[in-house]
Amino acid sequence: MTVQSKAAPSSVTTGPIAGSRKIYTSPEGRPDIRVPFREIALDPSAREEPYRAYDCSGIYTDPSATIDLAAGLPPVRREWLAKRGFDRVAARAVKPEDNGHVGADKLVPACPADHPVYGGKPGQHVTQFEYARAGIITEEMIYVAHRENMGRQAMIEGAADRVADGESFGAEIPPFITPEFVRSEIARGRAIIPANINHPELEPVIIGRNFLVKINANIGNSAVTSGVAEEVEKLVWAIRWGADTVMDLSTGRNIHNIRGWIMRNSPVPIGTVPIYQALEKVDGDPTKLDWEVFKDTLIEQAEQGVDYFTIHAGVRLQYVPLTAKRITGIVSRGGSIMAKWCLSKHKESFLYERFDEICDIMRKYDVSFSLGDGLRPGSNADANDAAQFGELETLGELTKVAWDKGCQVMIEGPGHVPMHKIKINMDKQLRECGEAPFYTLGPLTTDIAPGYDHITSAIGAAMIGWFGTAMLCYVTPKEHLGLPNRDDVKTGVITYRIAAHAADLAKGHPAAKLRDDAISRARFEFRWEDQFNLSLDPDTARSFHDETLPKEAHKVAHFCSMCGPKFCSMKITQDLRVEAERMAGMEEKSREFAAKGEQIYLPETAAE
Amino acid sequence: MTVQSKAAPSSVTTGPIAGSRKIYTSPEGRPDIRVPFREIALDPSAREEPYRAYDCSGIYTDPSATIDLAAGLPPVRREWLAKRGFDRVAARAVKPEDNGHVGADKLVPACPADHPVYGGKPGQHVTQFEYARAGIITEEMIYVAHRENMGRQAMIEGAADRVADGESFGAEIPPFITPEFVRSEIARGRAIIPANINHPELEPVIIGRNFLVKINANIGNSAVTSGVAEEVEKLVWAIRWGADTVMDLSTGRNIHNIRGWIMRNSPVPIGTVPIYQALEKVDGDPTKLDWEVFKDTLIEQAEQGVDYFTIHAGVRLQYVPLTAKRITGIVSRGGSIMAKWCLSKHKESFLYERFDEICDIMRKYDVSFSLGDGLRPGSNADANDAAQFGELETLGELTKVAWDKGCQVMIEGPGHVPMHKIKINMDKQLRECGEAPFYTLGPLTTDIAPGYDHITSAIGAAMIGWFGTAMLCYVTPKEHLGLPNRDDVKTGVITYRIAAHAADLAKGHPAAKLRDDAISRARFEFRWEDQFNLSLDPDTARSFHDETLPKEAHKVAHFCSMCGPKFCSMKITQDLRVEAERMAGMEEKSREFAAKGEQIYLPETAAE
Repeated sequence: MTVQSKAAPSSVTTGPIAGSRKIYTSPEGRPDIRVPFREIALDPSAREEPYRAYDCSGIYTDPSATIDLAAGLPPVRREWLAKRGFDRVAARAVKPEDNGHVGADKLVPACPADHPVYGGKPGQHVTQFEYARAGIITEEMIYVAHRENMGRQAMIEGAADRVADGESFGAEIPPFITPEFVRSEIARGRAIIPANINHPELEPVIIGRNFLVKINANIGNSAVTSGVAEEVEKLVWAIRWGADTVMDLSTGRNIHNIRGWIMRNSPVPIGTVPIYQALEKVDGDPTKLDWEVFKDTLIEQAEQGVDYFTIHAGVRLQYVPLTAKRITGIVSRGGSIMAKWCLSKHKESFLYERFDEICDIMRKYDVSFSLGDGLRPGSNADANDAAQFGELETLGELTKVAWDKGCQVMIEGPGHVPMHKIKINMDKQLRECGEAPFYTLGPLTTDIAPGYDHITSAIGAAMIGWFGTAMLCYVTPKEHLGLPNRDDVKTGVITYRIAAHAADLAKGHPAAKLRDDAISRARFEFRWEDQFNLSLDPDTARSFHDETLPKEAHKVAHFCSMCGPKFCSMKITQDLRVEAERMAGMEEKSREFAAKGEQIYLPETAAE
Repeated sequence: MTVQSKAAPSSVTTGPIAGSRKIYTSPEGRPDIRVPFREIALDPSAREEPYRAYDCSGIYTDPSATIDLAAGLPPVRREWLAKRGFDRVAARAVKPEDNGHVGADKLVPACPADHPVYGGKPGQHVTQFEYARAGIITEEMIYVAHRENMGRQAMIEGAADRVADGESFGAEIPPFITPEFVRSEIARGRAIIPANINHPELEPVIIGRNFLVKINANIGNSAVTSGVAEEVEKLVWAIRWGADTVMDLSTGRNIHNIRGWIMRNSPVPIGTVPIYQALEKVDGDPTKLDWEVFKDTLIEQAEQGVDYFTIHAGVRLQYVPLTAKRITGIVSRGGSIMAKWCLSKHKESFLYERFDEICDIMRKYDVSFSLGDGLRPGSNADANDAAQFGELETLGELTKVAWDKGCQVMIEGPGHVPMHKIKINMDKQLRECGEAPFYTLGPLTTDIAPGYDHITSAIGAAMIGWFGTAMLCYVTPKEHLGLPNRDDVKTGVITYRIAAHAADLAKGHPAAKLRDDAISRARFEFRWEDQFNLSLDPDTARSFHDETLPKEAHKVAHFCSMCGPKFCSMKITQDLRVEAERMAGMEEKSREFAAKGEQIYLPETAAE
């Protein structure tokens, strides 16, 4: 059944997204920090500045960049990291089990990119959390502040009459993001910058309730399908369309070497679930798992540069029986593995018992925690039950432990939750976990639409993002049915960009509506090309338009195929506007006149 | 540019939806009322009764039915209507302008189905509202009560431990729907059964906040594209996938004859926007519109059997200047036509001034009002502004007029609205319009994703449906870009079925979760075929599964391609369950033991 390709990846999708160009700008006084944006030039008739979009696509969308997958991306953080005095450490030697004992004929070659390995010393500041707590602003903090501010200055300067409103449910979104604000949010545990010191290629990104809502895309081969070239392309493809982070959920063989290619070529934080690889190392038998193999896997992956680990340390023995009467039991892979381990041995989870040691390892490299929700509901019927909420309470307890150890933490959340039970999740997470960032999978608001679960979950994702979730894990149309292909990855990413943006708008993020307003103006003024280019997916927008009205002339037409020229409401309204303004002017005059009329009868001293 | 086909439609999609069969059941004592359902048989291993789904697909999914588009559907309401003593009236003669003066060579032939025309007499009960107010339960009311109850009996009898919860925001959803409840809701104006007495082919459907949330699909050719065969197929295709009502928004030529084919072959209520055809009759110049041409169009369409009319009578002269500073002005076609009329003549809208007469015409045939929101926002920036809310207040005023005239009424709503402004719309509509059913287009929660507006709007639709909207008008992926094709119609319908169902679940509809629970059990027990068949779109679910694991054997496999056999959490959980239950049993025992231990110290009289 294994159909993995052993060929090293040689090419990926490159080139700018239609209608835009890559630019880099630097915070004042820091030319060494170059933050990428995507600039969308508008038709001259619009008399508007180019729109500046957040950009997670890396240099793959920069036509001036040379892409060499074997060499990896330029290490933008290397200089910053070099100054911090971390120890160069002898890299752990690759073991045959790291790649699933794959035979030489099926071995994916290791990524040859140069990769010196570093580790923090005890007592030294290593993590962004430790720096923040010590009052130190890192380059990563300056970078993300500049990155998040995209557009806010223009908002404040140019559109005082259109101040963003919104209901933020207690979030504290400032009008402008300063590096100091970033530092204070990280120090409070309310935001994280997943940034392993062994991932110098990273373009830093911040995850927290008071920043733009982020999205994650999952990639990864399984024992059944897909190879390394396909996975690297999925990474590049996912970030092209807007994935802020990517989780590599590979299982099966070649897992170590595939991850190497992904790490060296990823400008976004990479997350993994180390228990998957640990399980591969013990031939897929959960009962053979132990602390040693898990610890070894953590170090292996931390040295490769993984930025965050999902750790299912909240799946405690006592919660497992609570899932027995569920309709869908345990649906998290990590959760079911740990539940099996606990129950078969009648012992407390080693992830829970060894949590201090896990923290020490993760702190050493600044791997962020993504505390896994192993007992998340797999159906609407199981949402918000005792097992799920019991685990969440334990995650809250572990959050404080990890903070005390100097680690960055976010918390994973459900899953399948009907709309009326979503806010309860958010409120409880904020309360139990001291406002550590929440990172949810959907949630799916109904179970009845396999094939469309990007949509069932986008509804829940938009809502929970509005309520305060910091990052939304995408769901593709293949959820429950199969592994996503390239089209599914794109559909999932765009769908989640919609959910995240809808959440930003509703929260009242100061700059979010700039893009909506720009595209709406373009729509109203029949600037078709601007409408396509300002959209989340210019290629699809353009091709849908061209299906019915393909001719080039129609792209400047003042109507479209929906209504045809006679019924075009926008055209009629434009004609109306002149007349309406004249009428409004007349009303104004008549009000003025009426007002003056009244004044005639005022006492002389008060008259004009 | 006109590419309309003049050929009469000859065939449409027929046959059952995969894995289900059409059944008909009758309310007790009324064998003359046969209500269709779709029964989905489950694998014998499930030991579950077949699942009974609501079915709007008509006889097209009944393999035993003979489909003859030229003869039209069997008139299921004819006997009921015959007993009500309506006048047989001389049908209005078709005029050349009804089909846009199309030449004989391009004329779509009229649908030859027999269609005697009836009209109600003054003083006679005609509308469902009049019957309801008079305390009379019609066959249509009995029909929809039986139809809505689908599954509730089983819910109440079989699953006392799984009572639906929910937050209904003041809706009053009873555990069981009786014909008397239907009557009382219609009499209060809180629900409507759009059912023109000239549409005997109709399978009645109820629209109201205390019933299942309904969805509407728009079809219709434009001057630019599409012909009659394509439109009839779109109708059949839309109801196959779950459209409860269909609006024919055709413009251009042949509009009368296309509508004839649609009416005679539609088992669902058909809605139209009569001003579109009226505008065609005056060569597309809004300023040439007058009461006479509009009135003539109302009668023409009412005689054909149209079940509800969108009437933009709330676009009053005084509101038009309020749109002048909007980003997207007026985006409703009907709204912009009327605004142009008002402003160019500086006169109050004839729809507003002649509203009494409109009511009299609509009452005569029981055409329901869908009071149009001609000033709905076309962008997030324009949401909830003075123009929109001013119009809504006028619609509230007109609702009371229409009720006094004996008409059924629903109210159209937006449009483009960010999440935090959605509930305000619902609350205001309920207040202003006396709880008349709300019928919204989306709303779209962001403007930045043309090509994906079925998704941007499904988020808003699910939310506003939860808050109390009775019917959701679908949005397809082509919104803002082009006319939907067959695939787009299906995507739009399925997406809106998701939104409507998510809303039903969140409202706590007593039977909504039966389907979620059934599919979740199937998923957990690896009953792949049951999972496909219980889903909203079995064909897509099956084909997505088969893309990765095509072999027949894998449909009974206890794993899937996402995780492969070793990582299957569902499989692990099933293994766990036995063990967990044993453990829970042990805990029970130990609690019992502890309890008994305590009792040892109780006074002798209280001891067991």
